[in-house]
Amino acid sequence: MPDVDQHAHQIIARTSFFTIDNFTFRNGRRLPQVTIAYETYGRLNADRTNAVLIAHALSGSAHAAGVYGPNDERPGWWDLYIGPGKPFDTERYFVICSNVLGGCSGTTGPSSINPETGRPYGLDFPMVTIHDMVRAQRLLIEQLGIKRLLCIAGGSMGGMQALKWAILYPDMVQSVIAIATSASLSAQGIALNEVGRQAIMNDPNWNNGDYYGGKGPDAGLSLARMIGHITYMSEQHMHERFGRRFKDEELSPNGLKQTFMIESYLHHQGMKFVDRFDANSYLYITKAIDYFDLKKDYGTLHAAFEKVSSNFLVISFTSDWLYPSSQSKEIVQSLRANGKNVMYADIETDFGHDTFLLDCEPLKRIIANFLKREYERVCAS
Amino acid sequence: MPDVDQHAHQIIARTSFFTIDNFTFRNGRRLPQVTIAYETYGRLNADRTNAVLIAHALSGSAHAAGVYGPNDERPGWWDLYIGPGKPFDTERYFVICSNVLGGCSGTTGPSSINPETGRPYGLDFPMVTIHDMVRAQRLLIEQLGIKRLLCIAGGSMGGMQALKWAILYPDMVQSVIAIATSASLSAQGIALNEVGRQAIMNDPNWNNGDYYGGKGPDAGLSLARMIGHITYMSEQHMHERFGRRFKDEELSPNGLKQTFMIESYLHHQGMKFVDRFDANSYLYITKAIDYFDLKKDYGTLHAAFEKVSSNFLVISFTSDWLYPSSQSKEIVQSLRANGKNVMYADIETDFGHDTFLLDCEPLKRIIANFLKREYERVCAS
Repeated sequence: MPDVDQHAHQIIARTSFFTIDNFTFRNGRRLPQVTIAYETYGRLNADRTNAVLIAHALSGSAHAAGVYGPNDERPGWWDLYIGPGKPFDTERYFVICSNVLGGCSGTTGPSSINPETGRPYGLDFPMVTIHDMVRAQRLLIEQLGIKRLLCIAGGSMGGMQALKWAILYPDMVQSVIAIATSASLSAQGIALNEVGRQAIMNDPNWNNGDYYGGKGPDAGLSLARMIGHITYMSEQHMHERFGRRFKDEELSPNGLKQTFMIESYLHHQGMKFVDRFDANSYLYITKAIDYFDLKKDYGTLHAAFEKVSSNFLVISFTSDWLYPSSQSKEIVQSLRANGKNVMYADIETDFGHDTFLLDCEPLKRIIANFLKREYERVCAS
Repeated sequence: MPDVDQHAHQIIARTSFFTIDNFTFRNGRRLPQVTIAYETYGRLNADRTNAVLIAHALSGSAHAAGVYGPNDERPGWWDLYIGPGKPFDTERYFVICSNVLGGCSGTTGPSSINPETGRPYGLDFPMVTIHDMVRAQRLLIEQLGIKRLLCIAGGSMGGMQALKWAILYPDMVQSVIAIATSASLSAQGIALNEVGRQAIMNDPNWNNGDYYGGKGPDAGLSLARMIGHITYMSEQHMHERFGRRFKDEELSPNGLKQTFMIESYLHHQGMKFVDRFDANSYLYITKAIDYFDLKKDYGTLHAAFEKVSSNFLVISFTSDWLYPSSQSKEIVQSLRANGKNVMYADIETDFGHDTFLLDCEPLKRIIANFLKREYERVCAS
């Protein structure tokens, strides 16, 4: 293969908006209008058979790839994986990513204006589920003229959406890439989400969700993010990256201040997050994750997967303790027991749950190969 | 052995107080007077060779065993292990437990009155280290007329104190029982302590540590305890005990409230903790844990253990992810490389870090046997 400098072709991203009238949530609540923010990269082919939908995780957005302009230094959250010559090769695939319902990056969520009151919904926003997110995405996909997705792919909560797509709309999904995900979060995962939520709700500036226009619950949201970050890393990775090093070796341990590098790293991550995320969205989306339960919804996991017809690529990471490999293996076993076509990879890594967001060569290779094969299958048929 | 109903002999506990004048902390600060709260169970023998010092963990107290009266329903924190016929058999051993310096259960700490101002110390209390805690304990032991401890035993932070005792006062320590502990906390452990501290410091009622006499940072302290509790349990134990069960199966998932049993369990634990613990003590003691570092203090762990002369029993739990078995094994290897006498047990359990506080038969048996042998050694000599 010639050594082409493909990465020089940086995608210039643009966010689009799609409006749905009269969207009824799973819990029966109806909103007269919801907006879905989305981005697309690459071109839809004439047969409309090369569309890949990317589903983002808790803190993601529609901005999965590229930059907004030549001076934008921060590319989309999965730019390592989406673009010309990358696993989600935009020379070949038409890649779509939308911000989830309940989010805060362009799609309607708790921080959006309630047209009936002229003020942000706050806690009056309907409880949102993974099911609701997927139904909104389906309307977007149809609106884009796509009858069948070549692939729906996502990590963490994105993987939950991918699984739900395959179950709800089997005829619309050629293949699924479900990374570091679960058919239902563990009790420990729920517990960790709950302490994050409590950090927000303890903040007096949260004000029962009614803080828009005033000072928001920044300290609480920052703390929730700090807790989250601990769970996205492995102990081993934290040890190697930070260990017990002080942020300033000249200072000896003195008092209650942050002394260790790991502490200031977490504080930095927390503060950065506050600038780009809404605290109420954090509450709603973590609850959507907690409530997601394919076993409960369909009786058993086996029953949940009975009618899926997609080909599956399931990937886990050996050091992921938030969505441990055992949960991916459970999905794989249920799919196989149903006679479905599944590839599974448990990638050896020290980087924990967040591996899918990092530059992981085996992950890139496995995704690229799986997707190419699915593409060839579709084109050959 | 006759089947005596030994457990009917419930210990009636009484707290005593020991005053130290002019206590200088490791950081150079000096307090004119500190008080150490302690309890003793059993009788010191004529040779004063049967004394066992128990060191408590983060949230412990001097009240390790027995009850304060016939209507007291909540025995001391290690009552399963201390008493007639129990591993720390009070028919044979004289058991002592003191509340650590910086604590809030009778020993001088941030909530104690500063005699110079007539008001609680708050953040003016000196930073306390494991070293300081151990030095205060030594003064207590000497005051009790004991020249040499048969054993110093503790779990978690109690194990850190036990190791430090063996290093600082080798001639005073016949044996050490170090359970679920570490020569230095991992980066992950520091991170988890820091989010707990931040939960307290985010609470406006914390008021920079100056909350005594007013409303304290209850919500923050409760959240810190909730975070702590997650780390004391294993994922497996949480799964078996709570799983994804709702606290009220009649209610369907509705909104942001606590829906799952694991959530209400954690909230309950958090609220209970607020009644018995001081938020500033939580800050100080977690920092003492974070700063504890035998490798840093002595150059290497090997060097730290060079001069110890005690016999060691080191115990870890297979499902403990806060103080993982690997950290105990590191201690064992360093001791053995120094030619010291060490017994090590990695107890197979699903109960995580908190196993040492629970009714764990293998733990009881191993402690009882080790201690009996040490006792026989001392009596025979």
